[in-house]
Amino acid sequence: MTTPLPTGSTIGILGGGQLGRMLSVAASRLGFKTHIFEPGANPPAADVAHAVTTAAYEDETALRAFAQSVDVITYEFENIPTSALDILESLRPLHPNREALRISQDRLTEKTFLSDLGLKTAPFADITDAASLDQALQTIGTPAILKTRRFGYDGKGQARIMTPSEAPQALADMNGAPAILEGFVTFSIEISVIAARAADGQVSAYDPGENVHKDGILSTTTVPANIPSRLQTDAVLLAGRILNALDYVGVMGVELFVTPQGLVVNEIAPRVHNSGHWTQNGCTICQFEQHIRAVAGWPLGDGSRHSDVIMENLIGDDMDRVPALARDGSCALHLYGKAETKPGRKMGHVNRIVKP
Amino acid sequence: MTTPLPTGSTIGILGGGQLGRMLSVAASRLGFKTHIFEPGANPPAADVAHAVTTAAYEDETALRAFAQSVDVITYEFENIPTSALDILESLRPLHPNREALRISQDRLTEKTFLSDLGLKTAPFADITDAASLDQALQTIGTPAILKTRRFGYDGKGQARIMTPSEAPQALADMNGAPAILEGFVTFSIEISVIAARAADGQVSAYDPGENVHKDGILSTTTVPANIPSRLQTDAVLLAGRILNALDYVGVMGVELFVTPQGLVVNEIAPRVHNSGHWTQNGCTICQFEQHIRAVAGWPLGDGSRHSDVIMENLIGDDMDRVPALARDGSCALHLYGKAETKPGRKMGHVNRIVKP
Repeated sequence: MTTPLPTGSTIGILGGGQLGRMLSVAASRLGFKTHIFEPGANPPAADVAHAVTTAAYEDETALRAFAQSVDVITYEFENIPTSALDILESLRPLHPNREALRISQDRLTEKTFLSDLGLKTAPFADITDAASLDQALQTIGTPAILKTRRFGYDGKGQARIMTPSEAPQALADMNGAPAILEGFVTFSIEISVIAARAADGQVSAYDPGENVHKDGILSTTTVPANIPSRLQTDAVLLAGRILNALDYVGVMGVELFVTPQGLVVNEIAPRVHNSGHWTQNGCTICQFEQHIRAVAGWPLGDGSRHSDVIMENLIGDDMDRVPALARDGSCALHLYGKAETKPGRKMGHVNRIVKP
Repeated sequence: MTTPLPTGSTIGILGGGQLGRMLSVAASRLGFKTHIFEPGANPPAADVAHAVTTAAYEDETALRAFAQSVDVITYEFENIPTSALDILESLRPLHPNREALRISQDRLTEKTFLSDLGLKTAPFADITDAASLDQALQTIGTPAILKTRRFGYDGKGQARIMTPSEAPQALADMNGAPAILEGFVTFSIEISVIAARAADGQVSAYDPGENVHKDGILSTTTVPANIPSRLQTDAVLLAGRILNALDYVGVMGVELFVTPQGLVVNEIAPRVHNSGHWTQNGCTICQFEQHIRAVAGWPLGDGSRHSDVIMENLIGDDMDRVPALARDGSCALHLYGKAETKPGRKMGHVNRIVKP
C-alpha cells in the first residue's frame, strides 16, 4: 500500500480547466499544494494553484521539470498523449493508472473491456471502412450512431445514421479517424455513479444522480435519481466491479442507461465528472476531495448525502442568470472565472438544495 | 448601493494566513481572483491565490501597486497600520470600513462603543499609570485583568490581577503600552455569533456557537450552542445592532458571555472568525463566501444550518492526529498547509458532523 502523502506535499494536475480548478481547491483543504500543467494561457485552475506550467504536451523539458516538482500526478481529462505519459510516469506515480487511461481513451477498447467484464453495453462494432460499416449496420440495425474511437466529448465526433443511406456521409464526417458504430439503446433515464477507490482497495460510491442532456451537453443532474433501490445497488456494485478490475485509484464517473433489461453502461470517465458536482453541496466530502484523498494515498472520506440537490450547468449566456441565482437562498453558485463567455462553453454550475 | 462586482474581478486581501487562504477559496467559487498582500514569505493563502505581493505595510510603492491591481480590498486581521490604510483607501473601496477597524483595533474604544450602544460589557477603565490602575482596582475590584489596548490576540498582552499587590507587576508586563483594566465576568458559557451585512444593509447571522478555550486559544466551537432560544434571538439582534451602527459591510465575529443578567459582549472582530469555521460543513454558504459576497456588493447567501457541528482547532502537535481524523467518516478536515508545526500554532481544524 502507498504511504499517505504528508500534508504540504504537491499534487501535479494535468489540465487547467474547471475540474483542475476544483481539484486544486479540494487539495488545499487537505494542506496540499497543486501544480497545474496546461498548454493554454490563463487557465481557470491557475487562480487557485501554487504553480502553473504553461507548455505543450510535446515539451519534454517542461514535462520533466513539472514531474520533478511534484509528489504525485493526476489529471482532469483523459486525452493526454501517450508520449507525455511515458515521461511523466517514469518520474512520478500517476493516478488513475495508465490502464484506466488506455481503456477510456478509446471507445472500442472501453466497450470491449466492459463487455468482457460481463456488463451490458450498447451493441457495437469496429468500423475501419465502408464495408465494415455496411456489415455492422446489418447486424446492429438503424438508427445507430457512428463515433470516432478517440477524442470525442460533449457530442463532438459523432454522426447519427437513421437509415442505411446516410452511412456514407456519416463515415465521411469521421474524417478518416478510426470509428465505432453503436446501436441505439432504448432507455427511460440516464444516471451516473461517481465512485472512488483508494490505494488500499477501499471503494466508496455516491448516490446515483439522474442526468438530462441538452444539445449533447449535460444540463442537469438530480440527486437522488428516481430509480428503485434495487437499481441503485446494482449501479454501485457495477461501478465497484469496474474500479477493482482496473486496480483503479481515484474517482471515476460511470454513465448508465436505465432500461427494461437493467443497467447498460454508456461510458466511463477516469476522473472527477460533471455529473458529480452536486456532491459539493450534498455531501461533507465532495468528489474533488475524494479524488485527492485517493491519489494522495489517504483513506476515502464519507460520501453519504445530507441534502437532495439539483445541479444545473451554466452554459454560455446562462451567466446572465447569475445575479438572480445569487439572490436565491436555495442556490450555491460555482463559477469558473473564465474570461470569455461563448455559446456551449461551461461557465459554472449551480447546486440547488432541495431540503430533505 | 454598490454595483455588484462582476465575476472575474480581483479581490485584494490584506494578510495571507489561514483566514486569507479560506477567503481566497471562497472567492474562487464565485469566479473571483484574489491578490494577497502579506509581509511574510510563503503564506498559507499564496497556495490558492491568483497573485501575491510580499512586502511590508510601510512599503508605499508596493501598497499602491497592490491597490491598483485589485477591484476591492478586504482583510483577514485588524491590526493594519493606519498609514497603509490611508494609501489603500485613497485608491480602492475598503470593506469592512475604517470605522470598524478603528473601533476594534483598540479595546478601550471598542468597549466604549459597545457601552454607548447600550450593550453590556465587562466593567472597564482606561489605565495610563500606576495611579489610574490603583483607582480602577478600587472601583472594579479583583480579580481583574489588565490588557494592552492594542495588538492583543490569543491571550497575548494580558496579565491577571488576583489581588491588588499584583498590580505593579501586571503594569510592568504591559511594557509601557496603553492599557485597559477589565473586571471579571461570571458567565456560564461563551458563545459567538458570526453575522454578515451586505452593502444594501441586508443582515444575516449564523446560529450561535458555544466556544471553549484552552490556554487562551479557541479549542472548540459547538453548534448549536446549548442556550435557550430567547438568548439565541438576543444574540442575533445584538450582532445586527453592532453591524448597523457601523454601517458595516462584511462578516463580523461577536464573542458573548452568557450570564445570569443576560448577554455580555466580550469582543468583536471585523472579519471572518475562527469560531465560524463550522459553517464550512454546517451550512450551504460558509462565512468565507458570505464575507466575499458582502465585500463584492453581492446579496448575502442563505446561512441556515443543515447539520450540527463540533469544530475543533488543530494546534501544534494535534497534527499527529490527522491520519486518524482522515479515517473518521464524521470528520471534515481543513488543513492550512503551514510549513512548520509549532506549539500554539493553528495548523488546521476539523469539523465533526453531528447528524441531526
